[in-house]
Amino acid sequence: MANRITELFGIKYPLIQGGMVWCAGWELASSVSNAGGLGIIGAGSMYPEILRDQIAKCKEATDKPFAVNVPLLYPAVEEHMKSIIDFEVPIVFTSAGTPKKWTKHLQSHGIKVVHVVSSAVFAAKSEAAGVDAVVAEGFEAGGHNGREETTTMCLIPSVVDAVEIPVIAAGGLYDGKSMLAAMVLGAEGVQMGSRFVTTEESSAHTAFKEAVLSAGEGATTLTLKELTPVRMMHNDLFKRLVEAKKSGASLDELSEILGRGRAKKGMFEGDLIEGELEIGQIASMLNQITPAGEVVNDIISSYRSAGGDKLGGRFSF
Amino acid sequence: MANRITELFGIKYPLIQGGMVWCAGWELASSVSNAGGLGIIGAGSMYPEILRDQIAKCKEATDKPFAVNVPLLYPAVEEHMKSIIDFEVPIVFTSAGTPKKWTKHLQSHGIKVVHVVSSAVFAAKSEAAGVDAVVAEGFEAGGHNGREETTTMCLIPSVVDAVEIPVIAAGGLYDGKSMLAAMVLGAEGVQMGSRFVTTEESSAHTAFKEAVLSAGEGATTLTLKELTPVRMMHNDLFKRLVEAKKSGASLDELSEILGRGRAKKGMFEGDLIEGELEIGQIASMLNQITPAGEVVNDIISSYRSAGGDKLGGRFSF
Repeated sequence: MANRITELFGIKYPLIQGGMVWCAGWELASSVSNAGGLGIIGAGSMYPEILRDQIAKCKEATDKPFAVNVPLLYPAVEEHMKSIIDFEVPIVFTSAGTPKKWTKHLQSHGIKVVHVVSSAVFAAKSEAAGVDAVVAEGFEAGGHNGREETTTMCLIPSVVDAVEIPVIAAGGLYDGKSMLAAMVLGAEGVQMGSRFVTTEESSAHTAFKEAVLSAGEGATTLTLKELTPVRMMHNDLFKRLVEAKKSGASLDELSEILGRGRAKKGMFEGDLIEGELEIGQIASMLNQITPAGEVVNDIISSYRSAGGDKLGGRFSF
Repeated sequence: MANRITELFGIKYPLIQGGMVWCAGWELASSVSNAGGLGIIGAGSMYPEILRDQIAKCKEATDKPFAVNVPLLYPAVEEHMKSIIDFEVPIVFTSAGTPKKWTKHLQSHGIKVVHVVSSAVFAAKSEAAGVDAVVAEGFEAGGHNGREETTTMCLIPSVVDAVEIPVIAAGGLYDGKSMLAAMVLGAEGVQMGSRFVTTEESSAHTAFKEAVLSAGEGATTLTLKELTPVRMMHNDLFKRLVEAKKSGASLDELSEILGRGRAKKGMFEGDLIEGELEIGQIASMLNQITPAGEVVNDIISSYRSAGGDKLGGRFSF
């Protein structure tokens, strides 16, 4: 009973850095991969030529496996997939759409495919579509989450029961203890987003990183369930959306308030008032900006001391 | 580093059955205590004379420690506390109110006091009020939860950091794996509600127990945040409340729709359409009605095989 995630990806630790929009470029991904985890480039915020450039730089910066995350509803998905195949990226994480269309095609080029889900029903559908693993992402995660609001504590056992393929847990995880807790629930690996937003190599704006560090309890809310659910910090933009909902705004009106480019404005350009600030609930536990490689080492070391070194089998790597 | 929860309560396993309204009477509480956990009588749904009768019967049925849960906003709280002292109940769990008023008084009669919180801020306030331990209850729990929506995975590390007293985790826990996961996060004990609703000894109506067993993913939603937040199953009553909120109903209008006695109607009388059906997200993982003593044995045995027997210190009992 070895760990199937380290085997599947050819990595040292089953610790994966989420492919967050505007935060996860080649510097972050290569640093995580070089430290023994799996780094992911977040293609959801990149034009095709940007992604090609990012992949090329990532390959120069590491000879370890890394991945690209592609939201399947992204307009340039065909060009993204072509770049991934051309550059021989070994692993793709897909999200926000059906894994039926791309999985077999990518796999026929030797690429491992992982799909992100927020329910056991979609985990089973993803397995039926042939993916190699799933990420099960709980309600507490930053970014886009499921409408069912199932939390990581409830979601992981449910997804692990529903599929035979290995499950990667995400949502609310930030250190070695939470990594071990998720693996006790049945996961074989973990994906962390917020923790890597606050690294030196993250391409998030410094103002956003600092806002994340100063976030306290209750600083985020999963909102916009009418459009695409997203966990946001409570700035002016968020408050306007909440007020509009309270007064019975239509979907079109909500879309208009949200407008376009808000995530870039908030997370990449550092506009903390008018930008969309996506982060996980666990932001309240984060308190410093550190190099990503140190984060990987710190998490693995605290995982072991929390008991991961005593449990053997899939807990051992 | 022994387990402080088993020591504090004088029990064999740090496994506590939640004091759920309409579900947790003397039969359930005494069965759990006899099996080595801590059973709790839920006084929130009881008139003073009923509680006295329940305590007397519980004392006849077990010579092990048991507790009473008292929501501090309950009108008959003074009479409840008097009964608890008169009958020498060894442990009280308080919730929904400030622990300042009653903690010292109860402790002066040799009673251990535990307060239920949903945030680190209130955990620290409870510790300052002198309570012996806190229950940290996540967003996924049934019944009444915090407005911050902090999930168990995020809440436990945060509360453990905030206080020195032992922390009991609640919300989304139902078996030995989730018990171990919560303890890896830093808890020294766990409280489970939904799992004990579906026991033979639970006083919930059979129709409600069966509704819980058939609940799937996304079957519950935390609602009524405007009044008192409560996690409800999606029946006609729930849908009317959601529709009213969508059309901008006032607090008074929501209160009028909710009316009085809905929890009794749903959970105790089995009216699945018009009653308030409070249950945790983890209902989706429950699939049979079993004796409460078997549930305790099953959880402890799976806790040990999940790795609890290898970790020593506070994991060992």
